[in-house]
Amino acid sequence: MQGLGDVMRTRVKRFFEKVTDVDAVILQNGVTPLQDANFFYFTGIPEGLFENSSVVMRPSDGIEVITYVLEEQSAKGFDFDLTVHKERDGFPKVVDRLRGAKRIGFNGEALSYNRLERIRKALPEAAFIDVSKDLDILRSIKGEKEIANIKRSADIVSRTAKGVAGQLRTGMTEMGLAAWLVTKMYSEGANGTSFEPLVCFGPNTAVIHHSPAKTKLRQGSFVMCDYGSLHNRYASDITRTWVYGKANTRMKAIYETVEHARAAALETLRAGVNTADVHRAVLQVIDKAGFKGYMPHGTGHGLGLNVHDGMPTLHDEKPMVLLENMVCTVEPGVYIPGLGGVRIEDDVVVQKGRPRILTTAPRELIEVPVKPQR
Amino acid sequence: MQGLGDVMRTRVKRFFEKVTDVDAVILQNGVTPLQDANFFYFTGIPEGLFENSSVVMRPSDGIEVITYVLEEQSAKGFDFDLTVHKERDGFPKVVDRLRGAKRIGFNGEALSYNRLERIRKALPEAAFIDVSKDLDILRSIKGEKEIANIKRSADIVSRTAKGVAGQLRTGMTEMGLAAWLVTKMYSEGANGTSFEPLVCFGPNTAVIHHSPAKTKLRQGSFVMCDYGSLHNRYASDITRTWVYGKANTRMKAIYETVEHARAAALETLRAGVNTADVHRAVLQVIDKAGFKGYMPHGTGHGLGLNVHDGMPTLHDEKPMVLLENMVCTVEPGVYIPGLGGVRIEDDVVVQKGRPRILTTAPRELIEVPVKPQR
Repeated sequence: MQGLGDVMRTRVKRFFEKVTDVDAVILQNGVTPLQDANFFYFTGIPEGLFENSSVVMRPSDGIEVITYVLEEQSAKGFDFDLTVHKERDGFPKVVDRLRGAKRIGFNGEALSYNRLERIRKALPEAAFIDVSKDLDILRSIKGEKEIANIKRSADIVSRTAKGVAGQLRTGMTEMGLAAWLVTKMYSEGANGTSFEPLVCFGPNTAVIHHSPAKTKLRQGSFVMCDYGSLHNRYASDITRTWVYGKANTRMKAIYETVEHARAAALETLRAGVNTADVHRAVLQVIDKAGFKGYMPHGTGHGLGLNVHDGMPTLHDEKPMVLLENMVCTVEPGVYIPGLGGVRIEDDVVVQKGRPRILTTAPRELIEVPVKPQR
Repeated sequence: MQGLGDVMRTRVKRFFEKVTDVDAVILQNGVTPLQDANFFYFTGIPEGLFENSSVVMRPSDGIEVITYVLEEQSAKGFDFDLTVHKERDGFPKVVDRLRGAKRIGFNGEALSYNRLERIRKALPEAAFIDVSKDLDILRSIKGEKEIANIKRSADIVSRTAKGVAGQLRTGMTEMGLAAWLVTKMYSEGANGTSFEPLVCFGPNTAVIHHSPAKTKLRQGSFVMCDYGSLHNRYASDITRTWVYGKANTRMKAIYETVEHARAAALETLRAGVNTADVHRAVLQVIDKAGFKGYMPHGTGHGLGLNVHDGMPTLHDEKPMVLLENMVCTVEPGVYIPGLGGVRIEDDVVVQKGRPRILTTAPRELIEVPVKPQR
């Protein structure tokens, strides 16, 4: 097993093997929430906020972190050069480190316009090259330690899902259940949530990004929970849908369709396959079951340091070929306005054969016995 | 009391009264976490993620929101025009809405370089003007409803702080206490955390951005909790420091100094005063007590839709004059490496006279009776 320093050096090395036309790279965090996950990808720093902090990478010299004195303790003891500034503005130090570079790579997707312009003006001789796509590609193939972190995060949300049925009770609110989800994730070892939980009861389950509100749980409703945890900055993302009380025929038909769509996705998803084919396999099942047009979203998204990592996207609009050790969600759903919806979401690792499924909570239709209001 | 629509229209109107040299403004969210709080400031949308969604504002026509079909339900029923696209990429719609504008304002601090370049290339005739400073200024003066939301969020963290002493027990971990803080905030009505809680025991209290880890609580230690909640997207931010067991003379001296520094800040902080003067008043107390150099951070930061809102900053590096109804933190601290530190942080509203203090948890030194390990 490699030490953390080796892992980080390998990441930098791989980047410059791929991107040979730059002689330096600048990565910079803004003020919360405007953080660039690549800062943490290349430094491996597990704690701290690192607002306005920078990484300068060079093919030969490796990594330098430039940060404010507040982060000094969190940044110490790693395998990179560290410059700590006491003034609030570390810009002069960043420019110092970049000086002499002729072609400077930057992350055009995360670096703000003003930040790039400031650097550009200070270094008018240099050319600036957007390397965001290269960063996305590099980060999309997860290493052993990254997969272990995502798996740990997936275990946290799976154990949490197993507890949901026991919490359901007539009259409870979506917000109440959301609070319970967060509490449970922390008690299972999360050191953060990857996004605020979406909890929906009844017809709200058809509202895809519905935030939990005061809606109360009633018998005969769908209950949908979509939530994620962070472990060492790595995200998980899971959705499960339950029926509180008995499911009627229509609800069963929707659930069964999503189950079949999920099976079709897992049957298709493997290294070498085009993401559009995975999405089409899902839509085919849904269309055939008579729910054409009722799944308005993609089949899945990349997962890693961000809950929506840049690659892969299981959709037919930006098709791409899946590669081994990519990690993504698989989340077919069917949503009938006014009635409700079902989504089942798992986190998976792309392999040569069938994907490795990281989330382990049950996926079959669970009809939760009704408990009277307190 | 104005309706939400009136409040939003007033915000747009005020912006264009101040910024008269643009005939359109584009605000755009990236992918999580790269969101622009201004999107939510002008739309007032209380729920939903709104990745890749845009706002186009015009002096005469008000606001238009352009978003993906997933957010349709969350975006409906507000006082703005709504364009929903079924394709993943809403860019053509954004360009449509901006067409004809000669001078287009954008938020250079949040809009990524690539996003601006894409718009610029599609509209080569237009001039693009960074309006980030104007947005910061507008947002720094909080309205009645904003202050009510921050107050509600401050109540949540204050009630949480009051429960901390009862939780402390020999051998508990920082992570355990962090999990309890989050749980308690949700049970008090939070719909999110404004950042992951910082919990420090003993010497870790001198590490300013220390993340909670497996350090166990011992008798005679400082316990510091720095955390915040979200209510309707508005952030609070509080820090309290306790002594677990009995404080020694040195610990008492540190605590007392921070208390005095806090009093000096509140004595000074009011509309018309320069932020540098508030910070200097704090440093003067700290220096006089013999702790010169042991407060390496500013005295406070703006608070609103972001936990670090752009303005004001209570520091002497970017001095500015405080205005009525600005909201900020006041958070003096003293940190002795190896021993520990004390910080007391409150959220306040700037007024003509003494500031209104929104956070209400006790601030005096509390020596928490030791409870044996379980």
